[in-house]
This record gives sequence, C-alpha cells and structure tokens, in this order.
Amino acid sequence: MPKGVPANVPDDGLTTRQRRNAPVLAVHTGPGKGKSTAAFGMALRAWNQGFDIGVFQFVKSAKWKVGEEAAFRALGRLHEDTGEGGSVQWHKMGEGWSWTRKHGTEEDHAAAALEGWHEISRRLRAEEHGFYVLDEFTYPLKWGWVDVDEVVEVLTSRPGRQHVVITGRDAPPALMDAADLVTEMTKIKHPMDAGRKGQRGIEW
Amino acid sequence: MPKGVPANVPDDGLTTRQRRNAPVLAVHTGPGKGKSTAAFGMALRAWNQGFDIGVFQFVKSAKWKVGEEAAFRALGRLHEDTGEGGSVQWHKMGEGWSWTRKHGTEEDHAAAALEGWHEISRRLRAEEHGFYVLDEFTYPLKWGWVDVDEVVEVLTSRPGRQHVVITGRDAPPALMDAADLVTEMTKIKHPMDAGRKGQRGIEW
Repeated sequence: MPKGVPANVPDDGLTTRQRRNAPVLAVHTGPGKGKSTAAFGMALRAWNQGFDIGVFQFVKSAKWKVGEEAAFRALGRLHEDTGEGGSVQWHKMGEGWSWTRKHGTEEDHAAAALEGWHEISRRLRAEEHGFYVLDEFTYPLKWGWVDVDEVVEVLTSRPGRQHVVITGRDAPPALMDAADLVTEMTKIKHPMDAGRKGQRGIEW
Repeated sequence: MPKGVPANVPDDGLTTRQRRNAPVLAVHTGPGKGKSTAAFGMALRAWNQGFDIGVFQFVKSAKWKVGEEAAFRALGRLHEDTGEGGSVQWHKMGEGWSWTRKHGTEEDHAAAALEGWHEISRRLRAEEHGFYVLDEFTYPLKWGWVDVDEVVEVLTSRPGRQHVVITGRDAPPALMDAADLVTEMTKIKHPMDAGRKGQRGIEW
C-alpha cells in the first residue's frame, strides 16, 4: 500500500499530527473468512511497535484460534524475556474470563459476555492496553446481551491512544457509524463447499 | 467459527482424511484492507503447527509491512532457539531477492518479479516450505510480468502438502478458479477518507 495522501482534510480543529495519532476503532465484518485473522495480523504490527496487546475472545469454544493464541503467547514471553515488542494478554470467555473464578455454563453466556464488556470498559478508562482485539464481539451485541449504545459511548469517549478492533458478522449500524475503519469480508469460494473439512495449520 | 459439516461430499475418490489433508490454495483479493494482514494471520496458525513459513513480498517498498516482518522474524528466532513453531523465511523483491546479488532498479521490476516466481516454482517442486505467502503477487500477474497459466499449472500440480496464500487486488479469474478459498475484502469506510494519514502500529 503506497503512502496515502488524504483526499480531503477535515475542518476538525486538529493538527495533522493530532489527526495522525488519533486512535483507530476498526470493525471487520461480513460473511467471509479473515475477519479475526486480519485483526490478529494488525495486532502483530501493534506488538512490534511495543503496544500492549489485549485480546478478548467472545466465543464459547476457543478451539479455532489456538494457533494465533500460541503465537501471541510466544511473542508475549519474548517481550518478558527480551523487552522486544509489547506485552500480550489473551482472555477467553469460553473458559470463563481469567480475572474471575466463575466458569462458563450453558446458562450464563449473556452474563459472561456482559462481564467481559464491563472489564474491557474499565480497562479502556484506565488505558491498560494500546491495542485491543474484541474478537466476535458483534454476537453479544446482536443478541442484545450487551447494549450497543453503551459500547459506542465508551469506545468513542475512550481516553489516550488506544486502538480497538472488533470482529464478527452483522456488526450493528451504530458501531459501524462510530468506527474509523470498516472492512467487509465476503466469501467467494470456500473449501467446505467442495466437501472439505477444516484442517490443522489452516483452520486452527 | 463452529466446526463445519460439509454441505456435500464430492465424488473424487478420496477418503475424508485425504480430502481433509489436501493442501489449500487461498486468494485474498478485493479493494479493502486486510488481504495481506489476514494472510499473515493464517501464517501465525501455520507457524504454530510447526510448518516452515516462506513469505515472498512482490512490492517495490516493504515499508508498510515492517511490523509483520519483525514479528515473524522474532517467531523464526524463537523456533531456532527453542524448536517451538516452524522456521521463517521472509524475502522481499523491493530490496532485491535475498538469494540473488542483483538489487532492484526502476527498470527491472518485471524481471525481478519473474525471477521471484521462478524461485517459488522451484521451491514448490522441492517442497521447501509448508506455508507460502505470495504477498501482492496478483500485480505481476495483472501486468503480464508473470504468466497466469504457468502459475496455475505449477500451483495445481504442486506435490505434497504445501499451503499457498496469494494476496492483492484484481486476482485473475484463472487463479480464482484454481483456488480452494477466495475471500474478497471490501472497503466500507477508511480513516484516510476523513483526512487521516497512516500511523505507526496500525498501518505499519
């Protein structure tokens, strides 16, 4: 991607530097693959710039992202050992959030999702991370477990320079309106259409 | 992503296991962001499974992917030191391919791209990597620097279990036909539209 020249300069009272450094809220949505994968790719760049990474997975089972998790945990250990890159925290709702003692049951996914959001909201106010991945967070929004307006309010008023990437299908319009960057992934062709199942090193 | 059940089982004479283990050819195309980023995210999973990673960047300047490169080089060193994950090789056309002594000039991009493809073709025949990222490889195809039919022939006849991901806009139809997985990234909204420029930790 070539170095871009903005098509227009907004009348927002900010200097180019202030605008350049504005934290980004990105949404990866649509029915195709690559939404989470691209978010973790962005997190690689952020890690390399020394940003502290916080990943929050809003899914029942974390089975499908063990590869990314293992690689990021390795990068986190590298940071602890050598100071290279940033720190890495990886939290999964499916196993019960690591900061609580409760473990998920079939009944309390809505409560667990809301608890996850409250913790993220607290961390955003405290500026605990430089780069947040809220993986598959659109689903608790879609299902009404977490209030979209509250999420938009907290995200748009977050202090400092905290970048946030949210993934999942069917992102609510209010969230896309609030985002700086929205990308839709569209499936054109998938091996499962040809009767192939997911495989090691590709799907997980 | 839930564990998928194939919608139909092909009459290809393969067992489920053979089909499951078939190497994947993926294409990330379209005008949106995330094509390369998602490819590098896939490479994270492959690395974690111990696959040897080969990245080939078909771009003049590698400026915009320094974050991914640094993170993968760190993972490659971790592999050398601890045996964790797979090996990592990262080759850039923009600096002259590392296996040659020639350095790129304005005049010989077509020759350099073709040379890159010949080396990849050789490695595919020799099964040198488990996972290849051919980053922005659609452009030399689009510009006629590398022959699409030859590429499709080499890719579809590659031996063993070598996964290949190709990124870039305007993927040629013959390449998409040959691919197992095609995802199109569509831009819905981008910060540069609002007069913001690329920034550290997000764009590079």
